[in-house]
Amino acid sequence: MLLLSEIAAHVDGRLVGRGDFEVHALMSLGTATGDALTFCVHAPGRTVLDTQAGAILVSPELAERFSINRIITNDPYLAYAKASQLFRNPPVACSGMASSAVVSGDAQVGEHFAAGAGSVIGSGVRIGCCVTLGNHVSVGQDATIGDHTVIGDHVTVNRDCEIGRNCLISPGAVIGSSGFGYAPDGTRWERIEQLGRVIIRNHVDIGANTTIDRGALEDTVIADGVKIDNLVQVAHNVVIGENTAIAGCAGIAGSTRIGRRCRIGGRASILGHLEIADDVTIMANSLVTGSIREKGEYGSMIPVQPAKVWRKNLAWLRKLDRVIGKLVYWKGTAALQTLSSDNESDPKH
Amino acid sequence: MLLLSEIAAHVDGRLVGRGDFEVHALMSLGTATGDALTFCVHAPGRTVLDTQAGAILVSPELAERFSINRIITNDPYLAYAKASQLFRNPPVACSGMASSAVVSGDAQVGEHFAAGAGSVIGSGVRIGCCVTLGNHVSVGQDATIGDHTVIGDHVTVNRDCEIGRNCLISPGAVIGSSGFGYAPDGTRWERIEQLGRVIIRNHVDIGANTTIDRGALEDTVIADGVKIDNLVQVAHNVVIGENTAIAGCAGIAGSTRIGRRCRIGGRASILGHLEIADDVTIMANSLVTGSIREKGEYGSMIPVQPAKVWRKNLAWLRKLDRVIGKLVYWKGTAALQTLSSDNESDPKH
Amino acid sequence: MLLLSEIAAHVDGRLVGRGDFEVHALMSLGTATGDALTFCVHAPGRTVLDTQAGAILVSPELAERFSINRIITNDPYLAYAKASQLFRNPPVACSGMASSAVVSGDAQVGEHFAAGAGSVIGSGVRIGCCVTLGNHVSVGQDATIGDHTVIGDHVTVNRDCEIGRNCLISPGAVIGSSGFGYAPDGTRWERIEQLGRVIIRNHVDIGANTTIDRGALEDTVIADGVKIDNLVQVAHNVVIGENTAIAGCAGIAGSTRIGRRCRIGGRASILGHLEIADDVTIMANSLVTGSIREKGEYGSMIPVQPAKVWRKNLAWLRKLDRVIGKLVYWKGTAALQTLSSDNESDPKH
Repeated sequence: MLLLSEIAAHVDGRLVGRGDFEVHALMSLGTATGDALTFCVHAPGRTVLDTQAGAILVSPELAERFSINRIITNDPYLAYAKASQLFRNPPVACSGMASSAVVSGDAQVGEHFAAGAGSVIGSGVRIGCCVTLGNHVSVGQDATIGDHTVIGDHVTVNRDCEIGRNCLISPGAVIGSSGFGYAPDGTRWERIEQLGRVIIRNHVDIGANTTIDRGALEDTVIADGVKIDNLVQVAHNVVIGENTAIAGCAGIAGSTRIGRRCRIGGRASILGHLEIADDVTIMANSLVTGSIREKGEYGSMIPVQPAKVWRKNLAWLRKLDRVIGKLVYWKGTAALQTLSSDNESDPKH
Repeated sequence: MLLLSEIAAHVDGRLVGRGDFEVHALMSLGTATGDALTFCVHAPGRTVLDTQAGAILVSPELAERFSINRIITNDPYLAYAKASQLFRNPPVACSGMASSAVVSGDAQVGEHFAAGAGSVIGSGVRIGCCVTLGNHVSVGQDATIGDHTVIGDHVTVNRDCEIGRNCLISPGAVIGSSGFGYAPDGTRWERIEQLGRVIIRNHVDIGANTTIDRGALEDTVIADGVKIDNLVQVAHNVVIGENTAIAGCAGIAGSTRIGRRCRIGGRASILGHLEIADDVTIMANSLVTGSIREKGEYGSMIPVQPAKVWRKNLAWLRKLDRVIGKLVYWKGTAALQTLSSDNESDPKH
Repeated sequence: MLLLSEIAAHVDGRLVGRGDFEVHALMSLGTATGDALTFCVHAPGRTVLDTQAGAILVSPELAERFSINRIITNDPYLAYAKASQLFRNPPVACSGMASSAVVSGDAQVGEHFAAGAGSVIGSGVRIGCCVTLGNHVSVGQDATIGDHTVIGDHVTVNRDCEIGRNCLISPGAVIGSSGFGYAPDGTRWERIEQLGRVIIRNHVDIGANTTIDRGALEDTVIADGVKIDNLVQVAHNVVIGENTAIAGCAGIAGSTRIGRRCRIGGRASILGHLEIADDVTIMANSLVTGSIREKGEYGSMIPVQPAKVWRKNLAWLRKLDRVIGKLVYWKGTAALQTLSSDNESDPKH
């Protein structure tokens, strides 16, 4: 339970109504009960105005439309994010060290360290203060973990890797797996041992079962404030700039450098050895095969159609070059031939 | 070893031949040996009629084509599925609790509970009867697991999540990871704590290393009979209807609601905040960007061509708008211009 | 530290310069320091000639361009791969068995066995010599692991599966999960128990959080020398031929057979029950829906364009059949109608 006045102070909003109102939950407009706080981002419809919530986070423009207790703030969605942090249950519910957790004799562990059952801290590891590990976390030799970082169950942090402060690593993530590097030797593949590290800076979130490979010679680097969703693959020697967000199932191939404040959509793929500028948005399900030098939105997604319609369009796509060839033949003009000659150029943007 | 009569009773089929025939294995038509049971779904070719199997599950129409011991059933493939359950090896081979498994003092555990090495049952957890956990399973505080459910190695069930009866959760799956929710604060991302749960109903299968995020405020819900394959991402607040099947590597973004009896193909992606009707089939590798109101099959997959052919077609696709522009200019007629004006409409179906 | 002469012998190269030069690291041309070995694959530019490295792996053609200590070899990239193996840190940093590792009484374990904290070896397991397991590895009943194989943290090897010699299984991989097989029973799905195994031959690498399903009746087979990257899905009864390489996030559906020396690009998808010939390359992000009988390169990838451009092209693609219909109507000639009649044919290549 929190007092509404405490929440107003935490989100830096202006309170209208009872500061001693007791908030027992944070709920959405449509489902909120009388003891809950809710929030309103868009202009509300009639049903929304009928919310049963006891209090609301709301913008100055809309504040007068509600008669319940209000916290007025210019950005109610951001205020909701901040308020949510007061209501959270710790993602890892342990305090202190489980009896089955193992810390190497020469590892350094800061104050208020918590580790779940079976967690293993290797030789030479350094861990800051207020770090929490879930169950069965494995932290390899000489790795480091900064203050206030939380690491979920079954996470692997391989040797020598560095994780900064205030990070959240979700369950099953693998930090520092071996990069996919081989030299062809006739028909066989000779493994290239991956000698670099993964460096994760501060305030980084990594999703569940996401994999981040260590570098081949230099390091893979994830800068401050990067947010990565579940089941994302980040290959060796990738560098991701500050505050870039990467949605679920995306994949970044080796040695690609992504700029700052980019937004990479779900299942987007970025091939290797590319440079992506700052402030680039990649649409979901799209594929990047060349470097992107200018900020802006890029995509190659194809939404579904009814299968009957799609199959017809697809059949023409698969012979588009022959269709255009016929058109050029008919007309004998320079117009389409001009376009045709463009085909020699690189199909990358 | 099973008697053929026992199998016939289990699959509710009619036995022709020796009921005391001893079946030592279930094998495919082409590889079956004389002590094995096999099954025939399609009209068999000559080689198939030469099967070495000792017994066969077969339809009434085809039954007379075989002279070996037969179990006659209207749906031999379904009968094969049922028979396979008699031959299975338990997916988790433990009985009783491993000495290194840890159960919180205030957790409730039903009869015939088995838990592998290092499994951890948190405070307040409730587990039904005949539940089996593999090695290193982590069940968080206040979670619940229903009767006869089997949970594989290294699975994470985060706090407060609910799993129903007769479910199979495969190794490495993460149930209840934090949803990917952030509010932009200038250039930084403010984390939205995910306060909801994951609710998994009964007879649900979840594949290996699949991730299912907890809801932001309300819950993520997987209804009865849903089957989800490996490496699938289910984001926060998704709702999946009864008996829907989702193939490997698919991804469902936040707050999307999928109907009943849908079939989502491998690597299909469904964007967030959509509604998918009942009985919808999404082809493999396809992307859904808008709600689908009518049952039927939908797709946007593009099969490979030889690279030389594909590159030519692709080059034209990438300037299709300019090509069509030339055609409209030539003809000066209303025909293509009519199509052109459609371009203003939403590219969603 | 290694002597340059030792490295020259290991990579079978010709030494020019000081054999007693002490090499402390393997580094890239641009970053190498004076105590490091580097390598040069392409004709070097001016900055590269200015490398600070103390020694270099270089081809005969380029050897005279450098004045530092040299190891001359026909394939400097392959020599770099071999040299990297001298500098590697073991991927799993344990020696001997952790006190919390558990080996069943009837399991057989070879010499020089190392197992990390909490690793579990089930009943009837057979493990060769010089095998290393990380932390929390789970090896199920009757599984086998060959000599010199290394298995990372949190790997699941399910019962009866076989892993050969000199393999590397990265953290979080699941070997032998249940295949995705169900028979429809009206609206419900009846589970088909998966009775086969996974057979992994020798010199195979499997990436982090990759999943390989056991076979339904026969086995899933990964042949000698196959290399599989992170987050790849290999479904039941897939067979992958010798020395094929599969990049990250790829997916192979059930019962497909892939030939030898194939290269499957990142996020490529191959549908089920197909045959892929030897020496086939599938471009990244491409989808294979039909068997491929001839070696060569195949693709269906679509690279991004600026969103504004792509949306225009996409809008036409989504009505391509109607556009072509208009063209045919105008011209009344046989030309496009000939193409049109092709639409009846299978859209597979």
